[in-house]
Amino acid sequence: MPAVLEEFEPIFGEPKVEWTGTYSGLGQSSAFVFYVHSPDSSHLRICVSDFRHTTWESVRSVSQLEDMRDSVGIGGSWSEFIHYLVASIKSEDVKLLLEALPDSNDTKSAKLVAQKSKGMPRISFSLTKITGAAASDAVANLSQELFKAFKGLQYLFMEEQERCLQLTKVISVEKEKNEIFHSQLELNSKRQKLQKAINSLDKVDLTNGQNPPGKQAAQSPGPTKVTKRPVPTHRRAKARGIILQDSENEKDS
Amino acid sequence: MPAVLEEFEPIFGEPKVEWTGTYSGLGQSSAFVFYVHSPDSSHLRICVSDFRHTTWESVRSVSQLEDMRDSVGIGGSWSEFIHYLVASIKSEDVKLLLEALPDSNDTKSAKLVAQKSKGMPRISFSLTKITGAAASDAVANLSQELFKAFKGLQYLFMEEQERCLQLTKVISVEKEKNEIFHSQLELNSKRQKLQKAINSLDKVDLTNGQNPPGKQAAQSPGPTKVTKRPVPTHRRAKARGIILQDSENEKDS
Repeated sequence: MPAVLEEFEPIFGEPKVEWTGTYSGLGQSSAFVFYVHSPDSSHLRICVSDFRHTTWESVRSVSQLEDMRDSVGIGGSWSEFIHYLVASIKSEDVKLLLEALPDSNDTKSAKLVAQKSKGMPRISFSLTKITGAAASDAVANLSQELFKAFKGLQYLFMEEQERCLQLTKVISVEKEKNEIFHSQLELNSKRQKLQKAINSLDKVDLTNGQNPPGKQAAQSPGPTKVTKRPVPTHRRAKARGIILQDSENEKDS
Repeated sequence: MPAVLEEFEPIFGEPKVEWTGTYSGLGQSSAFVFYVHSPDSSHLRICVSDFRHTTWESVRSVSQLEDMRDSVGIGGSWSEFIHYLVASIKSEDVKLLLEALPDSNDTKSAKLVAQKSKGMPRISFSLTKITGAAASDAVANLSQELFKAFKGLQYLFMEEQERCLQLTKVISVEKEKNEIFHSQLELNSKRQKLQKAINSLDKVDLTNGQNPPGKQAAQSPGPTKVTKRPVPTHRRAKARGIILQDSENEKDS
């Protein structure tokens, strides 16, 4: 199966501009934007522009990219190479290397060089300057695609905001449940202590044989009173709308 | 205090194009993008472009906007008017109304019209066509600002993604706590039942006077065995790394 560039998400970024040669220091001061995309499944295109005077591009066929993979020295499959290439272009370290023409503001050559991280192989694209109608078209296309990407990202951002909102709601529900469980555990533990105290009293009374059956009945509602003890206000407020599963209490009393 | 446009966040959008007059049907087929921003605190600027042949703009001073507020009929304060204006421009219903010149692809007039929602007052900006270097500059500026907005949004989006990740972690911790509390409550209820059963047995034995003190001691470890009963596997796995607050059990056994 021949290598293809399927579903290649366009990448926009700002390269760091570095001059080599005897740069006169004039011109080329504006910021550049690069746009890497795949116009069809067998080509990768790079366009770099300052939206004003200067636009470059580079088109690479899949077979040229395969050659690049071999020379760059990234092992592994075709898709692993494309992942590496994308990671490099998306990294912080993308440079636009410009070589100055002597005594001129123009450039002799331009290259876009990307490196995933220090010590990793560099991905390099030699760029060709485009002018006139071709340049205008390329810049207009870049801007239109940038606007599409912006709109798409706006949508994704709103979706993510909505997801955060939903997650925050889930957290408050879970915390509320926790609060209820926790106060139920505390109540149970108090009731248990009291029950033990009552039982040991009963045992003493019964062993001494001084206790008529009526007295035991009078003591047993003790735990019921405990379960009806008011919950502290802050817990009560948070627990509203939730039914305490206190069927054990009902049986106890 | 005079009205000003402070911290006016730039807005980018795509207007719906509507032609009036005898439009020849040729040209003007590309999509337009509008850019509304405040170049300084006393001006609002609107730029509309297809990044190719056609660019319009409109600049409004704060006093012109105040006149607009009066004629549009939005009551309330200056900042309320600006909020209404922003909401209108950010709405889905922004139109680019173009009036065709007879027998030409050119336009006689252009307007950007925004409406917050149906039945609400319309905000309208008459646009002036710009050409030559002014148009190139305006388009380059629009594209550069669009890229800045895109980069800013990328950062916000990543932040929001990170927030979602953190919230998801909080949810799993809360759910784990809930699971532990819940199984503790279940254990307590089982232990309580058993305790009651033992206590009633004790009472019967003691009342009958057939029980030597040694036997009671042999029975009491009952609850301890219950607390040591293995938790179901799926709960055990989730509860790892969390200490069961079972100090009550320690005292009981």
